[in-house]
Amino acid sequence: MKNEKAERAPVHYSEYLQLDKILNAQQPESGKEGVRADDEMLFIIIHQTYELWFKQILHELEIIRAIFGQPNISDNAPDIYNTVHRLQRVCRILEIAVSQMAVLETMTPLDFLDFRDLLRPASGFQSVQFKLIEATLGLEYEQRHGKGYYRAQLKPEEIARVQVAEEKESLLVLINRWLERMPFIKDAKYWSDAGEQASFWQPYRAAYAASLNEAEQGNLPTFDRLFMDDTHYPVAERRLSADANRNALFIMLYRDYPLMHLPFELLSALLEIDELLSLWRHRHIHMVQRTIGKRVGTGGSSGAEYLRAAADRHYVFKELAELTSFLLPRNRLPKLPARLVNDLSYR
Amino acid sequence: MKNEKAERAPVHYSEYLQLDKILNAQQPESGKEGVRADDEMLFIIIHQTYELWFKQILHELEIIRAIFGQPNISDNAPDIYNTVHRLQRVCRILEIAVSQMAVLETMTPLDFLDFRDLLRPASGFQSVQFKLIEATLGLEYEQRHGKGYYRAQLKPEEIARVQVAEEKESLLVLINRWLERMPFIKDAKYWSDAGEQASFWQPYRAAYAASLNEAEQGNLPTFDRLFMDDTHYPVAERRLSADANRNALFIMLYRDYPLMHLPFELLSALLEIDELLSLWRHRHIHMVQRTIGKRVGTGGSSGAEYLRAAADRHYVFKELAELTSFLLPRNRLPKLPARLVNDLSYR
Amino acid sequence: MKNEKAERAPVHYSEYLQLDKILNAQQPESGKEGVRADDEMLFIIIHQTYELWFKQILHELEIIRAIFGQPNISDNAPDIYNTVHRLQRVCRILEIAVSQMAVLETMTPLDFLDFRDLLRPASGFQSVQFKLIEATLGLEYEQRHGKGYYRAQLKPEEIARVQVAEEKESLLVLINRWLERMPFIKDAKYWSDAGEQASFWQPYRAAYAASLNEAEQGNLPTFDRLFMDDTHYPVAERRLSADANRNALFIMLYRDYPLMHLPFELLSALLEIDELLSLWRHRHIHMVQRTIGKRVGTGGSSGAEYLRAAADRHYVFKELAELTSFLLPRNRLPKLPARLVNDLSYR
Amino acid sequence: MKNEKAERAPVHYSEYLQLDKILNAQQPESGKEGVRADDEMLFIIIHQTYELWFKQILHELEIIRAIFGQPNISDNAPDIYNTVHRLQRVCRILEIAVSQMAVLETMTPLDFLDFRDLLRPASGFQSVQFKLIEATLGLEYEQRHGKGYYRAQLKPEEIARVQVAEEKESLLVLINRWLERMPFIKDAKYWSDAGEQASFWQPYRAAYAASLNEAEQGNLPTFDRLFMDDTHYPVAERRLSADANRNALFIMLYRDYPLMHLPFELLSALLEIDELLSLWRHRHIHMVQRTIGKRVGTGGSSGAEYLRAAADRHYVFKELAELTSFLLPRNRLPKLPARLVNDLSYR
Repeated sequence: MKNEKAERAPVHYSEYLQLDKILNAQQPESGKEGVRADDEMLFIIIHQTYELWFKQILHELEIIRAIFGQPNISDNAPDIYNTVHRLQRVCRILEIAVSQMAVLETMTPLDFLDFRDLLRPASGFQSVQFKLIEATLGLEYEQRHGKGYYRAQLKPEEIARVQVAEEKESLLVLINRWLERMPFIKDAKYWSDAGEQASFWQPYRAAYAASLNEAEQGNLPTFDRLFMDDTHYPVAERRLSADANRNALFIMLYRDYPLMHLPFELLSALLEIDELLSLWRHRHIHMVQRTIGKRVGTGGSSGAEYLRAAADRHYVFKELAELTSFLLPRNRLPKLPARLVNDLSYR
Repeated sequence: MKNEKAERAPVHYSEYLQLDKILNAQQPESGKEGVRADDEMLFIIIHQTYELWFKQILHELEIIRAIFGQPNISDNAPDIYNTVHRLQRVCRILEIAVSQMAVLETMTPLDFLDFRDLLRPASGFQSVQFKLIEATLGLEYEQRHGKGYYRAQLKPEEIARVQVAEEKESLLVLINRWLERMPFIKDAKYWSDAGEQASFWQPYRAAYAASLNEAEQGNLPTFDRLFMDDTHYPVAERRLSADANRNALFIMLYRDYPLMHLPFELLSALLEIDELLSLWRHRHIHMVQRTIGKRVGTGGSSGAEYLRAAADRHYVFKELAELTSFLLPRNRLPKLPARLVNDLSYR
Repeated sequence: MKNEKAERAPVHYSEYLQLDKILNAQQPESGKEGVRADDEMLFIIIHQTYELWFKQILHELEIIRAIFGQPNISDNAPDIYNTVHRLQRVCRILEIAVSQMAVLETMTPLDFLDFRDLLRPASGFQSVQFKLIEATLGLEYEQRHGKGYYRAQLKPEEIARVQVAEEKESLLVLINRWLERMPFIKDAKYWSDAGEQASFWQPYRAAYAASLNEAEQGNLPTFDRLFMDDTHYPVAERRLSADANRNALFIMLYRDYPLMHLPFELLSALLEIDELLSLWRHRHIHMVQRTIGKRVGTGGSSGAEYLRAAADRHYVFKELAELTSFLLPRNRLPKLPARLVNDLSYR
Repeated sequence: MKNEKAERAPVHYSEYLQLDKILNAQQPESGKEGVRADDEMLFIIIHQTYELWFKQILHELEIIRAIFGQPNISDNAPDIYNTVHRLQRVCRILEIAVSQMAVLETMTPLDFLDFRDLLRPASGFQSVQFKLIEATLGLEYEQRHGKGYYRAQLKPEEIARVQVAEEKESLLVLINRWLERMPFIKDAKYWSDAGEQASFWQPYRAAYAASLNEAEQGNLPTFDRLFMDDTHYPVAERRLSADANRNALFIMLYRDYPLMHLPFELLSALLEIDELLSLWRHRHIHMVQRTIGKRVGTGGSSGAEYLRAAADRHYVFKELAELTSFLLPRNRLPKLPARLVNDLSYR
């Protein structure tokens, strides 16, 4: 048998990884000025590793966007399995992004001051890839904290790159559509003539209402607004439709049926990404405060304040996170029709 | 030679660790009700590990309080070295406290609902040890977010325990006193007749003023208030005196002299504790939101909101953190008098 | 509606967690001797947290053993999903067990020597729960490194407890049986009259053989021994039968089909548990070497050497780990019969 | 005042980090072949982040080598403080190197097989920077496991680069010299006419001998060989002289005196680096076994076996690690002469 492997030119580690580029891309400004600042190398290298990881995250998100951009997502293709796997990988990467802040924190404020002035006005806020990640997940320009500031930081061609990403269908939009299309809960064949809402959601609402104590009564109108009223959509500030909310809640409630396993893992992974991005921003705040204090950042911003606002406001999947407030304990759940149970199961 | 070791009764692992107590202290409420809730064991055990770690943190803090409560802290005793070591250990423990949140997050909201109602009104806010840690570090009752709520949660004898801790000199108070007493910067023998302020801080202030760009001009009045004006103290909201601030900044600036190494590590460790407690609260918020959602907690609170406010407001050493804004680069630092340099050095 | 919650006595945090037991179970030997050894508290508390976590791991493993002890495991029950979830939780716990070694490493050798002699002959090797974990997973007495030593360390009633666990069906035995029973690969209806081996495994073997380069030729007889020869089982040193091996490899190869998703996650979680236990032992070795050096441990052992041997030999699921050597790339996999593909899919 | 900052050209984030190079250095082999292998990007990027971290580690080690290459290291210069700080940073980086293995482990064996054959014979063993790190720390060619294999993997110019590093004075050699020169323990002025050995080490040896129980008697001849016999050096397999061993043990014993604080932290950091490198290799083994199994690696090696041997044999500072076996408890330590105590203290 001809060995097809032999025909390729041998691959060598350093060429495969293009180490000539990677390891020759560190030119400290302090060196150019003849100033000694031993820690600038760390500053450059850690930011480069962040940018490499951002590239990898974007790579994963583009694969996922392609999956969800298909006209149909077959439950029997490994699409959702693949997506869950990739979202979980993004989580592992973000965990590293959080942890490696500890390396940068070994640089003390005084060591940073050795070269800080030489970097103006460069700033981490100029990371286009990070803004692309936010936009690809679903953060819209209008929702961004400090919009003017953000525009002022980027070059026109960089703003344009982010805009292109903002104009594509974001993961949030695609997830909303996927949730809306899930056949099980809405398909008439599973329900009495009264339809899905009357057959399932009215009893669910009643059981939910009965479960609320006095202090929780305010949850009921919210329930109605989120799950029962399709007319409210599209509305500013709401990105998920009532259909999508109902299906997402259904997934959370009935995740123990085989067909719901992976959708549940998928929703969980999206929430975890939001949490890790928020954690990253909080860790980032501490690092900035330790190394910069309350002086304005090299980019002219009060870094810590921007990050704090972003950490609190830039949750992309917060509407999914809110759904956990509307769960019922398993022993109070409406029983599903046998036909539906059957179709939620393996053959 | 008589072997003194042989005289003690042999020690056995399970008795030494009192495992009969430790491993028989888990009585799930669900078991008492005949309800199956497999995850309640996890819920109990992880909280018990937290309480064990809290006990250890209190143990370390009491050792440190005893060190700083001495009338004199000799630089040649291992007191500061010992303190730094113990504070760094507290940091390692808090890192575990943050990380192990990931274990609790493996409990899904639905699994928690299996037994959640049985726990009312128990709540993590009822951890007396955690409040003792906060009080021992220096959080005062008046600074606490949600004071009424906090009182309502605890039993009278628990409130009394926390009050006792609040009335003792906290670590923050002790650190302020230690900073005020540091001899070097204030000792007249190092300075011309004009005294320390005129000999060192006036030139420092001038160099600092010259380093500020337009957007940073607001830092100068703050500089004066923090470092130059002893009359402002004691003032509500300020826990460190101008003397303490000056000495703390001096430590940060001249940490490369032998006598300043450990004081600098000590200040850094205090800041790290604050950061880790804040990170713990943020991670806690995410865990609560995942498992409870926006329903009120078992203790009747909106858990996430309390934690968010505490995470933002309960920084004990925030005044130390702010000092990094007033550093100058090494190449602009006033030169110290030779006699002072000498006394900051090893023999 | 009557509120059934009101009828239970209110539950309070400290009573629920039995903190009177948990927080009063630390009695340093140094205190009894009037010796000052500030770090003995840490030594006690960290071991107690380990024992709490071991109890939780045993709790999870018993739930899993009950699932796999059922006469039938329905794919449509959430049994496998539940198992995967619990094994992954065990992994998260083991990660904490590894990480928190860093806390113990803050105790220096000299600090340990302050109280080390007082603990004799107590030793971490006397942890019965850890031995129960090993036995429940599937480590047999005969496979244990240092059998005599291990017996000498434990009390008769402790040895008896471990023996009871060793005599029950371990997770490894249960997993072997579950793998053997998997219907898909062996069911005659999917294959031509020649049967499963001729229809699937002979072509697979041929493709595998073709994929081996010269240095890898030794893998082929191993392939035959593991997958093709049922007569070798039971054989000393082999715990998985050829049937189980074939089905496990099939799961690894066709994990992208819906019915194989969770079995693949299950196998991966078992491997991860082995890895984390090994990592825990290695981290443990470093901790022991730092705090004890090469002196014999308090239990009379050379701790580090025992741990090294255990770390290398006590892999419970090593036979599963070896299967990855026999995978083929997706593009060389035999195509499955349509009927089988159909039955591996959702309805 | 002229603002000198305004004169420099503004620095922009993406140019400063040379992101055009960094983010355009990923050319998957699968893409060249028209094969779809979505995970090759991850494989490239994670290796690139490793190489960036290796560059940073080498940067830190070179700064440290320059410090220890000075004819004199003043205790009053921040040299040792700086060194400890940098070694601790290397530890933080190695912790990330260990943790981020978890990201690569999200690549399953089957996903790796999609492109594995295309990489031959590239292999992680071809990382020159990693070998430079080992050589700079002090691993000699003769001590390397698999010498022939290692030579076969590298290009002649790469072997030459490692040889240059091997021929320089390694950190281990420099540390040995620094330990030998430490003035305190050997300076005649501190001891009676009988000299250091008779005044201090003979009593220490006697106390140590008295502390050994029966099983530990073998430690005494080792004690003599390591600490008392200068004639054994240089001897194959021993890299630290008896002088260096005595001074290192002295540092460990009297670390509570001010002048010994930092030397103790330095020795601890060296041990921690060894441990983290070993942990990295172990984690690496698990990753390799999960993704490759026992097939030979892309470079033709049995990766796991090489790593196992390296993990066990490539401890650079193992002689320092062994010293902990020869510590005495504080309450049995010989009392130091007052003059020495004085000189070990701050002024």
